[in-house]
Amino acid sequence: MTADAPVVVVVEPQTPGNVGTIARAMKNFGFTDLELVDPPEITPDSEAYGFAGHAREDVLPAAETVTFDAVVENYHTVGFTAITNEDARRHVRFPFRTPRELADSLARVETRTALVFGREGTGLSNEELERLDEVCSIPASADYPVLNLGQAATVALYELRTLTLGPDREGTQLPDVERERADEADIDRFYDFFAAFLEGVEHREHKREKTVRMMRRLVGRAHPTEREITTLTGLFRKAAERVAPRDESR
Amino acid sequence: MTADAPVVVVVEPQTPGNVGTIARAMKNFGFTDLELVDPPEITPDSEAYGFAGHAREDVLPAAETVTFDAVVENYHTVGFTAITNEDARRHVRFPFRTPRELADSLARVETRTALVFGREGTGLSNEELERLDEVCSIPASADYPVLNLGQAATVALYELRTLTLGPDREGTQLPDVERERADEADIDRFYDFFAAFLEGVEHREHKREKTVRMMRRLVGRAHPTEREITTLTGLFRKAAERVAPRDESR
Repeated sequence: MTADAPVVVVVEPQTPGNVGTIARAMKNFGFTDLELVDPPEITPDSEAYGFAGHAREDVLPAAETVTFDAVVENYHTVGFTAITNEDARRHVRFPFRTPRELADSLARVETRTALVFGREGTGLSNEELERLDEVCSIPASADYPVLNLGQAATVALYELRTLTLGPDREGTQLPDVERERADEADIDRFYDFFAAFLEGVEHREHKREKTVRMMRRLVGRAHPTEREITTLTGLFRKAAERVAPRDESR
Repeated sequence: MTADAPVVVVVEPQTPGNVGTIARAMKNFGFTDLELVDPPEITPDSEAYGFAGHAREDVLPAAETVTFDAVVENYHTVGFTAITNEDARRHVRFPFRTPRELADSLARVETRTALVFGREGTGLSNEELERLDEVCSIPASADYPVLNLGQAATVALYELRTLTLGPDREGTQLPDVERERADEADIDRFYDFFAAFLEGVEHREHKREKTVRMMRRLVGRAHPTEREITTLTGLFRKAAERVAPRDESR
């Protein structure tokens, strides 16, 4: 999977801090190869290292300085820009894909891709975008769609993490929660104890039925864990005993 | 829609720069209300303003200082953390939702929600998380899942933008590209001219058929725009005339 992990290219970054931020996002989302076109000097005491987190140990020191020509020549290139063209009358910034669409499309090809980000102030120029193969744009507020360079790269790499970490939660820190929903049989057993409990506190059958139905909806849409259902079942079993009518003749 | 836009809460941010980064992400994704628990001093010449972009004009100066108690009391609260519990044996950090799942779930309730982010070094404490209603975690590399505060908020607000901007591309800077695919009739007309062109350069009919099929696949999956098809049609109509056999007896 990681054999095809895209490389990240930053064209003329001006502040070392943004390079560090991008390196950190790369490590957070499983990317390793950083290439810089005409970067500022990046020394171990610069903000680049300060912002890189653990990426200061690998991604950042391994960053390579390259030319824009080499990037165009060696990779399938995707240029990121906040500013798209409105329609197909101009092709420099149109058509474009969103990062999510890009992730879907790259998942189905075997190619070495370069994700190309532009300089802080002005992004990628039209002349640069014309030489790249695809355009990608992060959907943001029409009022202020221009993200900071480091934040744009973070969102893009977040969306493209499936290319490096694998689909869904594979390769992430998150446990697979699919298994965590309690067994339906155990959930139903809880409703039985809850109904038994209600018999002790509410004598009107139609009210009891409505209340069980409410509980079924509440618990149902919360997708309870085994542990939650066990706790609730224990609680209401005990409570049902406590509130049971003492009148033996009943 | 924006009446229910979540507020963003940052608990004990330590560096003004991160507050500025968060303010910028808020403005980029349509959020307006920033509340800070025990923040550092934020002066107009601090990094907060330097990192805020256009949010220095509204989101950042309007930020309010609040108490954690007030946040718990006034809102449906969602705590963000990179570190979840593994299963339901402990409930402090489990179950959790991903930002995308959270966006889906919040889209269907009418409530004022607070998105709560913790301090840079250690995030939200267990004591704080216990008082919040839901837990949200950004999927990231198992090797290094801890995002920088500003980057975590950026990803979260990006995913939750549908709550403020509306579904899909509504409210974003991106044009609605659905309309942009060329008419099927126009695309088919292009294939006719391409086939006519091939008659002039390839005399073996089975080869021509294969080549038309290849072009249909290539263009088909690229979802051509009207403009692209018009250009291609014009080009191959002209080319077909040029390569047409001159032998009138044919």
